[in-house]
Amino acid sequence: MDAQTILDFIEELGVLKRLPRTGWLFRGITDCESVADHCYRVSILSMLLADSLVSQGVEVNAEKVMRIALLHEVAEARIGDIPFPAQAYIGEDVKTASENAAVRDMFQGFGTLQQQYVALWEEFEYGTSLEGKLVQAADKLELLIQVFEYEQVGYRSLDKFWENLWNQRNFDAYSLVREMSQLLVEKRAGLGIAEKQGLGVRD
Amino acid sequence: MDAQTILDFIEELGVLKRLPRTGWLFRGITDCESVADHCYRVSILSMLLADSLVSQGVEVNAEKVMRIALLHEVAEARIGDIPFPAQAYIGEDVKTASENAAVRDMFQGFGTLQQQYVALWEEFEYGTSLEGKLVQAADKLELLIQVFEYEQVGYRSLDKFWENLWNQRNFDAYSLVREMSQLLVEKRAGLGIAEKQGLGVRD
Amino acid sequence: MDAQTILDFIEELGVLKRLPRTGWLFRGITDCESVADHCYRVSILSMLLADSLVSQGVEVNAEKVMRIALLHEVAEARIGDIPFPAQAYIGEDVKTASENAAVRDMFQGFGTLQQQYVALWEEFEYGTSLEGKLVQAADKLELLIQVFEYEQVGYRSLDKFWENLWNQRNFDAYSLVREMSQLLVEKRAGLGIAEKQGLGVRD
Amino acid sequence: MDAQTILDFIEELGVLKRLPRTGWLFRGITDCESVADHCYRVSILSMLLADSLVSQGVEVNAEKVMRIALLHEVAEARIGDIPFPAQAYIGEDVKTASENAAVRDMFQGFGTLQQQYVALWEEFEYGTSLEGKLVQAADKLELLIQVFEYEQVGYRSLDKFWENLWNQRNFDAYSLVREMSQLLVEKRAGLGIAEKQGLGVRD
Amino acid sequence: MDAQTILDFIEELGVLKRLPRTGWLFRGITDCESVADHCYRVSILSMLLADSLVSQGVEVNAEKVMRIALLHEVAEARIGDIPFPAQAYIGEDVKTASENAAVRDMFQGFGTLQQQYVALWEEFEYGTSLEGKLVQAADKLELLIQVFEYEQVGYRSLDKFWENLWNQRNFDAYSLVREMSQLLVEKRAGLGIAEKQGLGVRD
Amino acid sequence: MDAQTILDFIEELGVLKRLPRTGWLFRGITDCESVADHCYRVSILSMLLADSLVSQGVEVNAEKVMRIALLHEVAEARIGDIPFPAQAYIGEDVKTASENAAVRDMFQGFGTLQQQYVALWEEFEYGTSLEGKLVQAADKLELLIQVFEYEQVGYRSLDKFWENLWNQRNFDAYSLVREMSQLLVEKRAGLGIAEKQGLGVRD
Repeated sequence: MDAQTILDFIEELGVLKRLPRTGWLFRGITDCESVADHCYRVSILSMLLADSLVSQGVEVNAEKVMRIALLHEVAEARIGDIPFPAQAYIGEDVKTASENAAVRDMFQGFGTLQQQYVALWEEFEYGTSLEGKLVQAADKLELLIQVFEYEQVGYRSLDKFWENLWNQRNFDAYSLVREMSQLLVEKRAGLGIAEKQGLGVRD
Repeated sequence: MDAQTILDFIEELGVLKRLPRTGWLFRGITDCESVADHCYRVSILSMLLADSLVSQGVEVNAEKVMRIALLHEVAEARIGDIPFPAQAYIGEDVKTASENAAVRDMFQGFGTLQQQYVALWEEFEYGTSLEGKLVQAADKLELLIQVFEYEQVGYRSLDKFWENLWNQRNFDAYSLVREMSQLLVEKRAGLGIAEKQGLGVRD
Repeated sequence: MDAQTILDFIEELGVLKRLPRTGWLFRGITDCESVADHCYRVSILSMLLADSLVSQGVEVNAEKVMRIALLHEVAEARIGDIPFPAQAYIGEDVKTASENAAVRDMFQGFGTLQQQYVALWEEFEYGTSLEGKLVQAADKLELLIQVFEYEQVGYRSLDKFWENLWNQRNFDAYSLVREMSQLLVEKRAGLGIAEKQGLGVRD
Repeated sequence: MDAQTILDFIEELGVLKRLPRTGWLFRGITDCESVADHCYRVSILSMLLADSLVSQGVEVNAEKVMRIALLHEVAEARIGDIPFPAQAYIGEDVKTASENAAVRDMFQGFGTLQQQYVALWEEFEYGTSLEGKLVQAADKLELLIQVFEYEQVGYRSLDKFWENLWNQRNFDAYSLVREMSQLLVEKRAGLGIAEKQGLGVRD
Repeated sequence: MDAQTILDFIEELGVLKRLPRTGWLFRGITDCESVADHCYRVSILSMLLADSLVSQGVEVNAEKVMRIALLHEVAEARIGDIPFPAQAYIGEDVKTASENAAVRDMFQGFGTLQQQYVALWEEFEYGTSLEGKLVQAADKLELLIQVFEYEQVGYRSLDKFWENLWNQRNFDAYSLVREMSQLLVEKRAGLGIAEKQGLGVRD
Repeated sequence: MDAQTILDFIEELGVLKRLPRTGWLFRGITDCESVADHCYRVSILSMLLADSLVSQGVEVNAEKVMRIALLHEVAEARIGDIPFPAQAYIGEDVKTASENAAVRDMFQGFGTLQQQYVALWEEFEYGTSLEGKLVQAADKLELLIQVFEYEQVGYRSLDKFWENLWNQRNFDAYSLVREMSQLLVEKRAGLGIAEKQGLGVRD
């Protein structure tokens, strides 16, 4: 992995700063966070969760957790942020296979690190390790925190995010994560959001 | 097709106003046009091209052309605007099949109009009629006009749009379209754009 | 109408992608739709309404409807989107005459199509045909759908749009349109919007 | 002029923060300054020019200059920022009369101050006093400074702003203003802007 | 104070158009007003308040009030808009001393006007004159009007702005200001804002 | 460190998604990256650099590097992104002390992790470890990559970023970093940027 290889990779990741998260666009929030914004907070949240779990005696590899978190969305620099209604049409398997192939290509020229990074990415994508599952949970927890923050600011019609159980993936694997999500749900109750509506979006 | 059906469909299209065209995001233009912005100009350009061709004695059905133009991107309300580097991974065929299925679903409840609208969409997608090909050309011509306008405003590193022959699809089928693209290329030459660069984007 | 003429016209329309609809700016929505965004949805809605009416046996020329819809705001590429409080000062007649003159100038060089396009624009502006009236209704229906969507997202103080009878222009001419607007009013009731306020805007 | 009257007036001015200057939108700059942004810099520039002229022995009423500068665009809170291609159609006289009527209405309830403020606005609009002319010059000088700044940042196709003599209104009435504009032209020469182009905008 | 000196100063102020007010960013409003937007409305509000007070027989120098208002934020062109949670760490005294030094530097080359402008800025900063106090009140009144307007548009979690007594600085020094703030509080009560929440911001 | 503590911290970091990097605002780029956007790319770049150095036999603790990178800007959630012209007035020492105190406060309740995180932050801030220095270099390298990308897109007047030696902090400590920066400088030469200008910003 030489200077040119790293530079090319980092330049390609630049688009993650410019890609809005499509979930917000579909729900009507136009001036929203970028994919990179999300990745940053997932990564630091993952570090805190791992460190906290370790201090509680849980065996989890914090270094691996950080690597997985930093890598978990790099495929979006080629595939983009496929919107959720699209996934039923394209198919979860095709989406995953496309992202997997993109990740492999993006790490061309990384020598022995190529396979290592691809394997870490796969631990997230397929949830095949404790660390991969923790980042899956952190990814969704960060999402719900952002939903809550948008609701605090006044945005509405985001109910579906709370109802979708997929957004609580692996929450029960870690009581710390479940506690955080419960605190969030309680704080949200304080907002007094009454309506149950959704923009004209296919669920 | 009753009031509720039309209303649901039109509400779902609302997201096209909020979706930025990913081609610009990948090339670094963040405050860019929406999918609906593009659709509007393609539609009126298609009308002008059809009317002009008819006045020259070309046999083309202008009404059909307008319908096709208005319908040609509706699938993006479910599939989004898949970025170009993604297409090699997802596959042209999967993308088209996904969009086709989405269009069929979106026109559920449209009665006899469902099949008519799907068929028009397919004429564009597969270029199976004179009218479908004309909108294909209009779609790309509008793109190049927008590239040129961004370059006039000062944006750079958009050379790839001009070099990609796919962006001249069916231009030679209509001398009027070819003439317009040549005028554009001449005007662009006047901008004196020297560098040949691209952001860190996989072509 | 040669290549240069069409190209000049289409380039001039580019500004419609960049012009925000001033109604939203005056009501405090800053990151709002463009004029072209609106025109796209009015055009496809007009097509659906016309096709639906035809299928119900109403005599309406769908081709003409699409042309009128695509043309109905082109004058804004020269005149801009005059804000509603301005109209009392400038005068409806001066505004219309200005737009009419602009449309005539914009279609200079279009040969026999110039008069045809101006006449279509006038059918919308003056409501002098069944098709012109249908696009007038579609124009306002699209507006109310957008108001509703902004309210779903959390924007408030948009009550005036619903109270202004001008925003229901020609709704009673087509039971289909009236049904759609009633469905919309019912859905809006579900949002539980209580306050009755308006930004410091002159009505 | 009681508390309610001032509050209503100030709330109505809020829209000036949200209105983009249409000159930039027409030239392709979408994320541009607001009308209020412009008004602020015109006002402080007017103060500096007046104070500087006074210190050179020129007889000019600086207090009046500041009042005129702060008031010179208030009509846009009702009339909007009419784009330049529109002015040929609406007519300079209608535009001015509309703004004049709007200003009179906006200052309803201001008691003796109503006539005073309207008179100050008219001194700017009609250039009927030394102070009105100075703010006219400051208004255009601020515009050219902003053009230069956009060009420094990389925006192009703004040549027309420099060529339009209307943008140098009253520059020769004050050698200080003329000197500033000459310094600006010299700095701009250093940018090496070669092309001479304009977006598809009617001049 | 020659042409070059004024031009340099005015160019430096350009950034005030581009700086968002950090108070809104911290509270989740991303597409918000600029510092210059705020300065404009504070300045015209200050003029109205001064003129109104004078007409009531209060002895206040309106010319001085306008100068102070126009100058009160110029230091932000060098120091930026330090966010409120930062002030406890940096220290009010350090912030003020930094701004004071910046103002002195910015007016280098202004000859006798340098000291005059610095003194006016200090009257605002330290509230050492009737006119300085009036602009302090106008500065906060404008803030609260903007909070109210954002709440009208649908933004929430802005309660802290109303509770913070610092945002009513010198309101009781002028019954006119107090009346305006009371009218505002009454209008806000009409919005029916129930929740009492704040984004994750340190107060 | 319990669920509530982590949740409060993560919510407070939300503002980093909304804070634009002031360096771009001062140079005229208004629709720019957020602080979180920058933090994400610095973090993944730091990981790649560390892993690459390790594979070359350099002794560097990659886990520590990732932690430092993720933590290096958290103070900005309280202090904001102090613009560079401000630093001469506020003083490097006051800025650092303020950020240090903010970091300590933000990690209140983190138990034994508080001191660990503060210490890691200090390694970056004071460059007191190999890992801290590596992240300092990554922080500036990411900045220069972003400058280059903005220049590719057409932005100009960014020369100062390349001339400022502070933006090459610790580049010579790692030949890999120096090579990357040289590749960047070569690519930039290909852009043919001629002018040497800067907006009216105090350096």
